[in-house]
Formats: sequence, C-alpha cells, structure tokens
Amino acid sequence: MEVKKTMEKIVALAKNRGFIYPGSEIYGGLANSWDYGPLGVELKNNVKKAWWKKFVQENPYNVGVDCAILMNPQVWVASGHVGGFSDPLIDCKDCKTRHRADKMIEDWNLQNNMDVKVDGWTNEMLMEYIREKNVTCPECGGKNFTDIRKFNLMFKTFQGVTEDSKAEIYLRPETAQGIFVNFKNVQRTTRRKIPFGIGQIGKSFRNEITPGNFIFRTREFEQMELEFFCEPGKDLEWFNYWKNFCFNWLLSLNIKEDNLRMRDHSKEELSHYSNATTDIEYLFPFGWGELWGIADRTDFDLKQHAEHSKEDLSYFDPNTNEKYIPYCIEPSLGADRVTLVFLCDAYDEEEVAEGDVRVVLRFHPAIAPVKIAVLPLSKKLGDDAYKVYEMLIKKYPCEYDETGSIGKRYRRQDEIGTPYCITFDFDSLNDGSVTIRDRDTMQQVRVKIDELYSYFEGKFDF
Amino acid sequence: MEVKKTMEKIVALAKNRGFIYPGSEIYGGLANSWDYGPLGVELKNNVKKAWWKKFVQENPYNVGVDCAILMNPQVWVASGHVGGFSDPLIDCKDCKTRHRADKMIEDWNLQNNMDVKVDGWTNEMLMEYIREKNVTCPECGGKNFTDIRKFNLMFKTFQGVTEDSKAEIYLRPETAQGIFVNFKNVQRTTRRKIPFGIGQIGKSFRNEITPGNFIFRTREFEQMELEFFCEPGKDLEWFNYWKNFCFNWLLSLNIKEDNLRMRDHSKEELSHYSNATTDIEYLFPFGWGELWGIADRTDFDLKQHAEHSKEDLSYFDPNTNEKYIPYCIEPSLGADRVTLVFLCDAYDEEEVAEGDVRVVLRFHPAIAPVKIAVLPLSKKLGDDAYKVYEMLIKKYPCEYDETGSIGKRYRRQDEIGTPYCITFDFDSLNDGSVTIRDRDTMQQVRVKIDELYSYFEGKFDF
Repeated sequence: MEVKKTMEKIVALAKNRGFIYPGSEIYGGLANSWDYGPLGVELKNNVKKAWWKKFVQENPYNVGVDCAILMNPQVWVASGHVGGFSDPLIDCKDCKTRHRADKMIEDWNLQNNMDVKVDGWTNEMLMEYIREKNVTCPECGGKNFTDIRKFNLMFKTFQGVTEDSKAEIYLRPETAQGIFVNFKNVQRTTRRKIPFGIGQIGKSFRNEITPGNFIFRTREFEQMELEFFCEPGKDLEWFNYWKNFCFNWLLSLNIKEDNLRMRDHSKEELSHYSNATTDIEYLFPFGWGELWGIADRTDFDLKQHAEHSKEDLSYFDPNTNEKYIPYCIEPSLGADRVTLVFLCDAYDEEEVAEGDVRVVLRFHPAIAPVKIAVLPLSKKLGDDAYKVYEMLIKKYPCEYDETGSIGKRYRRQDEIGTPYCITFDFDSLNDGSVTIRDRDTMQQVRVKIDELYSYFEGKFDF
Repeated sequence: MEVKKTMEKIVALAKNRGFIYPGSEIYGGLANSWDYGPLGVELKNNVKKAWWKKFVQENPYNVGVDCAILMNPQVWVASGHVGGFSDPLIDCKDCKTRHRADKMIEDWNLQNNMDVKVDGWTNEMLMEYIREKNVTCPECGGKNFTDIRKFNLMFKTFQGVTEDSKAEIYLRPETAQGIFVNFKNVQRTTRRKIPFGIGQIGKSFRNEITPGNFIFRTREFEQMELEFFCEPGKDLEWFNYWKNFCFNWLLSLNIKEDNLRMRDHSKEELSHYSNATTDIEYLFPFGWGELWGIADRTDFDLKQHAEHSKEDLSYFDPNTNEKYIPYCIEPSLGADRVTLVFLCDAYDEEEVAEGDVRVVLRFHPAIAPVKIAVLPLSKKLGDDAYKVYEMLIKKYPCEYDETGSIGKRYRRQDEIGTPYCITFDFDSLNDGSVTIRDRDTMQQVRVKIDELYSYFEGKFDF
C-alpha cells in the first residue's frame, strides 16, 4: 500500500492528538507561531535529550553550556550580525506585495525548471538576474519592482528604564555566539585541551520575512549547536568526523537513509571565512529541505571577538608548544525542525485488513513521547489496571486509558507512536500477568506484572 | 566549626568551577545577565528534570506543554499585563538617581527597624508614606523626589518587516498565560477531566529596574509553573495540597527545613482575584527571599481570556452535570532562583584535620552535575582508568581527571559536589577492582569494575 504522506495530515494529527497547536490560537494566532502540547513537549524533550546524550554527556571531548538570550550588543557587531545579517527585500510596485528577492528567484527558477542556487549573491547580482531572466511577481505576474534593500533579521528590544538607543539590545539570532564569548571561561574552568567542543541547546529568534511550512521555519526556534575547537590544519579532518557523526545520529534514531542526503556547498556558495560547509537535507512532504548545517568556520569567530573585545582568545598548545586561535567546526541543528523530521519520518499508514488502515507513528522507542499505555479490558478492571499504571509512571511516561473498545484504544496509541500497550484482562486478576502488544509487529506476549520493570529494562535506551 | 556562607564565596566558586559566568563577560557584561557553564547547565537541567518528574511525568493528574515566548499581544491585554504589570518609579531630584519606590521604602524600613510590607499599595499610598515617614534617598539622603509613575515591565519588540505599532509584540513576562490560552486545546486532546493540571518550563522576561543578587533576580529567567484546574469550592483544598507538595519536593531533594518557611499573604496583600497565596521563602546568605509562590487564582485568568477572545472556556463536569469555569491553583517557581537555592544549601565547609578545611557541595545525588569522577592514582594508569570512564559515561555524566595529587583531585570533586570518586590504582590492574570514595562520609569501598553498573544502580534516582 502506498502511503500518502502530506503536511496536511501531519499538521492535523499533530493538532488533534496534542503534539502541536497553533500559537495563541484563541486570539487568531500569531504569524506561524506554534505551541507544543502534552505529547509534543515530551517528543521534543526526547529529541533534545538524545542530542545532549551523544553530543555532550557521552562525548569525552565535549561539555555543555546554557547562555543568556540577551547579550551585550557588541557581540552582534563583532559576529557580523549587526552589519550583515539581513534578507534582501523587494516590493512589487503593481500589487504592493513584499518578497524576499532570493526566495522569489528560487521559486521562479523551480517553476521554470532552472537549477540555479542564489545563496551568497549580492543585491546587485539578484537584481541583475531578475531583470535578465524577466522574473515575475509571484502574486500578480508583474515585472515592476522596487530596488532591493537589506532588512536586518534580528529582533530588537530595549532594556532598562528608557527607550533611548543606549539600551537597545537584540534577541540572539543564534546560540553559537554565547559559546564563542565563553570560550576562555570554559577552557579555563574545565582545563580542557584542544580539541574540545562546547554544546548548547536554546531558543533563538529571527524576524523571518516568510516563515512557514509548520515548524520548519518559525521566527522563534530552538537550536542545538556544537562549536568544536581544533588545531588549524586539522579542521577538515574534524569537519568530516562531525559530518558523519551527525548523519549517523539520525540513522541511529531510525530516520530512513532514503530520506537523507548530504549537499556540499560549492566554492561560490561558501561564506568568505568558511573552508567547507555541508548541509544534511531531509525529504519533507514538501520537498528536500535543509536540516543540519555542518560548517568549518576556521578561526573567524574567535578572531572577530578577540579584535572587538581586546581579549586574548588564543590557546597555548602544550603538545605543539604553539599559540594559536583554534579553528572551529559547527554542526548546527534546529530542534523544532528535527522534531518535524521525526514526525514526518515516523508517519505511516498500514492496511491491517482489507480496507482497514491504521495510522502509526513508528518513533524510535527513545523518541516516543509515551512509552507504555495501560488499558483495562473492561472498566470493571480499572482499579487494578490503574495500579500497574501507577507502578510504571515512576519510571516511564505512560498513559492510562479505559475509554472505548480495546481495538480503538490500540489505534489511538498507534497514532501517537506508543511502542507498547499493556492490556489488563480478567485473567490478570488470577495469574498476575498482562498482555503486552508491540506497536510495529502487533504481536502480543504475556508477562507477569512483577516482571514488567525487567521486561522494559533497556527497551527505551539510546 | 561555624560555616560562613556568603554570596561572595558562592559566586566565586560558581565562576571558578564553571557553574555560572557573568553574561557577555568579554564585553564588560550586560546588567546582571549570567551564563551557565558546563557544571551549571547540568545542575540546572537536573533541577528541571526533578521538577518535571514529580509535577508532570509521575503525577497522574498533570500533563506538560511548551508554548512560544512570543504570543499575540491580546493575550497580555486580557491577562492585565498591558494595563497593570508595572513598577512604581521615582527619581531623586537632588542626585538624579532612579528608584523603585516600593523597594526604596522597604529598604528604608529595614534600616529603621520598621516591619511594614508595601506589596499591593497604590502609587498614592506609597507617596504618602514617603512624605509622612520622611523616607530618604538611598544615594544622597535627600527628600526631594519626583512623583511616582508606572513603568511597564514587559520587554517590547517588533515582528515583521516594519516597526509600526501594529507589529508591536512582547516577550512573555510569565509562562502561565501560554497554559491558559491552551486550556481548551489540552483538555480536548487529552480528554482530561477536572481536576487536572498543565505544567510548563520556559524562559520569561521582565524589564526589572533593579535586578540583582546573582541569579536571584534577573531580567531573563526561566520559570517552572503549574496551573492546576479544579472545581470551584474545592480550590482551597487543592491549594493546601500543592502548598505541601511543593514544600515536600524541596525537602525530598535535601533542602534543609531550617532554611525554609511558609508565609501566607494577608488579606491586604492578596491580589483582588486571589482566594489565598502563600510564599515558600528560603534563607539566602543575604536574608529571607521569596522562592515559590503558590496562589489560588480562582477563575480569574480563564474568565479574562473567555471575555477577550470570545471563546467558551467553560468545562462541562460529567460528575456534577454542571458547566463552570474551573478554578486554578498556581505553584510558580523560578528555575534559576531554585538553582541558587540548591547551590547555597549544598555549600559546606568542613575541617577534616586541624586547620585543614575542605569545601564541599552536598548536593542530592540526583541534582549533582557530575555523578562520578574517575581518577587514576598515577598517570601511568591513565589508559586503563580511561576505559572505566568510557564505560560509565554511557550511563552517567562523569569526569575524568589525572592532574595533581589524589588528595587535591578529591577536593576538586568535593567542591563541585560529585557524590562518588573512583580511584584506579596499581592493584586494579590485577584484581579488576577500584576504590569508591563517598563525598560526604569520605569512606572508601573496593568494588569490582564489572560490578560498577550494579553498584551505582538507583544511587542517583529521584
């Protein structure tokens, strides 16, 4: 049976089952903002835990930090965000609509079967291309555009009692800079030697002109970034190491390899300071989209901060007896975007009997928001079944459900990706055993209640 | 031996060991902002996990959510924050300094041994008190003040492409409202019956005029809030339930009862909509401070949102066959503030021999950022000891340290609160065993490496 995986189905399931609701919904929402519901918060937390475990806890090279969203504005001058973190805006004079010039060209290219990437182009290059190729307004089809101008993507706010320009600060557009400005603090207090990395999970904000595609691109989003510092000259070696590490992390959490690809940036596409950049892309229902950017950023960031802060951010290498500014490899992943990947990849429809289709989210057990559902076969068994539930929630996020036929309850759990359903039946009262149903195989085994802890031991590990 | 626990010592230890650094430090900082270092992020994450486990995962009544920081501005009109969430500002005309009038009075009262609380006073009441009692400027001692005016504490920003007032939005000043606006969504998708609660952990922002005392009061902070919905009339019962639940949560994580007290708000102090409010206070090195506010908010919030959004936020109770707007109990805790409590409460100095004092953080094992340190007795044993470390990091956050004398390394681990140190010595090569030292008793036991997993099983549970 062919599965039609569409964004409509996934968004509807996410809303109806309590994964993700539209933000501020009772007030008509707020431009592509989203709230994680009871299942969504567990799903996203599991994704973050799985990242932290492999990139920080278990990794002998790396440590974590959690830096403030509000930083001294000089940070963003040094990082280049004040000067250069902007989108090229263009207005159609005919229909008065506003567009991101680069996206407008890419969409137009797609429709006209042209395979031209415009990443890294200047405003002049974009404008020339629009004129030369006769790119049209996606709204009205006109060709009467304003010039392109820069629109800075940082959210601005004011700290302190007055709204004068001295108190103007930004919401961080990325977590990475919190790591760079703490490079010395972390190195000194942990007495780490190069190579070592610093990981961080936290919210960032970008005033995107065209957010969209559910939680793929939102103005407020959560990042999971690692900045890995190494000796200059060894950077490409580590770049390859982390590229593969990231790819394998996805595979080990059961993301299908067919839905993943690596795209190396061409020389023209590379930022001026980058030695190499690769995007891991995922095949979303709306097409291939960037998921994970892995970049060799050389010593650009630390050098910028050393220059602007007048602090010495170099490192004395006891192995080589040399002093240098470390090079940095950055694997940067969006927590919301990869949560969407887990949702899309897990989505499946299966014909269990002729004309009878079940929807099932085939999450890796470590990622599944609910690990076990406890279901009494009859409401009469509720009190006893509830004791099993109370025993299990001490160790795992569980659900208890006694409403509807057992078949319907299985389907409900399949739809939210619960790996195991425990059915407490009338025999359970006598033999002290319950039936455990596997989400994927739908096979059932009988297990003693006393042995449930040991039965599940290790089943949700990652 | 009397332990002198001061903020200076705790702030210095936090910085030197990598718990907490000043934010944006290389740029001279940013007004009382702080970054969590490698130990701090683990500590704070453990605190958040312990809250989530007891308030959400293990609690059969409650579920979690994770809502956006940026919300539709109408939310803050309905909640009363646009109209009323402000501090009373006053300027000294003589020395041109700016103060929070209520704090200025309280500080003055403290110095003059007057026990008058001014919470909930209007600007007029504050002004009258200042005149009547001849309250003086804390900077210059003058009495020449401006009038008091309101200063709204919400951070404002602009979403979208223009900075006109239509796009003006706020950074949420509390996580609670994300829960209220999703009340229906959560109730519907989880099919919960009253009573049930919704918990959330997330960042909030308040443009405090006088942030301070390390991470006690910061402009950017993280909250752990529960909104527990119940039948009207049963609210005081549940209020008492949650008050005790919160207090016991602190005790179960080894916070000393002597350092805690409950303070019930007086009738005058209560918000107009609140039936009862109690603060759990903690004895910080700088004095008693509010830690956890538990409030009976009646049906105020849901009613406000029903009115402003025109949505029906009432609940049909199948047990009583009645339709009502649920009452709500709110235990609201700051994650940063309670992290400071864990740091302060754990801090200890112990004279282990005459004149030889060790500093030790006596964290509950579930809260300790590093669970186990692996220490080879000699660098020659490094390779073998490192294998033990590699085995243990699969399950626990561990440190490996081979620098300095074993005594110094024990002290270093005591200072960051590591419950167990494993020493790999020359005998270990032959007997396959290591020595485990307990942080608090300093007693040592010999355990086979093969049995380490089972030795530590359950030791860090909460």
